[in-house]
Amino acid sequence: MDLPRPTDDGDGRTARKRRAIMQAATDVFLEHGYLGASMDEVATRAGVSKQTVYKQFHGKEHLFTEIILGTTTQVVGGFVRAFANTLDQATDIDEAFRDLSHRFLDNLMQPDVLRLRRLVVAEADRFPEISGAWFEGAFHRSLVLLGEAMARLADRGLLRELLDPTLAAYHFAGLVMYKPMNQVMFAGSRANPDTDELNLIADQAAAVFLAAYRR
Amino acid sequence: MDLPRPTDDGDGRTARKRRAIMQAATDVFLEHGYLGASMDEVATRAGVSKQTVYKQFHGKEHLFTEIILGTTTQVVGGFVRAFANTLDQATDIDEAFRDLSHRFLDNLMQPDVLRLRRLVVAEADRFPEISGAWFEGAFHRSLVLLGEAMARLADRGLLRELLDPTLAAYHFAGLVMYKPMNQVMFAGSRANPDTDELNLIADQAAAVFLAAYRR
Repeated sequence: MDLPRPTDDGDGRTARKRRAIMQAATDVFLEHGYLGASMDEVATRAGVSKQTVYKQFHGKEHLFTEIILGTTTQVVGGFVRAFANTLDQATDIDEAFRDLSHRFLDNLMQPDVLRLRRLVVAEADRFPEISGAWFEGAFHRSLVLLGEAMARLADRGLLRELLDPTLAAYHFAGLVMYKPMNQVMFAGSRANPDTDELNLIADQAAAVFLAAYRR
Repeated sequence: MDLPRPTDDGDGRTARKRRAIMQAATDVFLEHGYLGASMDEVATRAGVSKQTVYKQFHGKEHLFTEIILGTTTQVVGGFVRAFANTLDQATDIDEAFRDLSHRFLDNLMQPDVLRLRRLVVAEADRFPEISGAWFEGAFHRSLVLLGEAMARLADRGLLRELLDPTLAAYHFAGLVMYKPMNQVMFAGSRANPDTDELNLIADQAAAVFLAAYRR
């Protein structure tokens, strides 16, 4: 029998319940679409009362908004810090961009990230403000910041001068992500490319990017 | 008053009804998700009887399959012929790849194509066989064929030797499509980039691709 652990009280328990509700709600939204999702089912799957769901999230639209936008700042912060560090500390840019490709794949091919992505796409025309805010605040924002890190590499003479640093960042992301992300998004989560293929994709993307952008 | 035209009978009328049903069903699937979609609503929106829907498409799953897979061969055929011709007849590869970028954007940013794409993504985990067949038969197949056309350019000495022609084709597609497609898929159909931005994206993608792949 598991004894209650010290983290089981106060904020710890509330935070765990919130995570359980958000996980369950993501499942239910993905299975039934936003309109078909019921708060009863969310509560049942999360193992909490419906009252708890409403206390924590007020209602279905607020819960949906929290799922899409709740982790944006945190995700962007961590992801961007990691790749900005990689580039800012680079002395060997071949190695730095290979490293960056692998970080992109490791982060973006995670099941939770893919589920969030699928949910945003599925409901983007119903909630253009929410999905638009996610795109601007997380997706596009990350690439703007990556472009700024690339511009610093250009200032250090390691990349050619960038007329549009954000577009250069999208080029890098497109070279890395276009094949594996479409495969997974279209062919379903079971179609994840294997490790060898991902390694090849990462290394080739870095090589092609640098062939075009190296000083 | 419109008089009945010669095409209004026989196959013409049946084909128009099928198109109307498929259009209406795409709307209903996108609005309510697959599970929430009702055949009654499809029939009402298409302006036909429910009996006609069943006679033409048997049931909901068959209708969904037809929407996703029904136009695959036709789309791939037309799209691939266009870009294979562009590359096979190229003498100026800068011009040819700029032309190809614009063709990609013109074809793939069309509202109907975007709606189909959104529908496949939304339901990919529910129908991995259907969406997987679409990915293999349309998306991936187009890029395999584009890769073969690129390999012929390499044989003619206009591109460098390609170790993985399909990956080269994905690189090109990623350079062109990653920014505008994600913008539209995530931020909703109202976020379509304007013509000036699309022209810049197309030209830059071609330039970056050739910087890496030119012989």
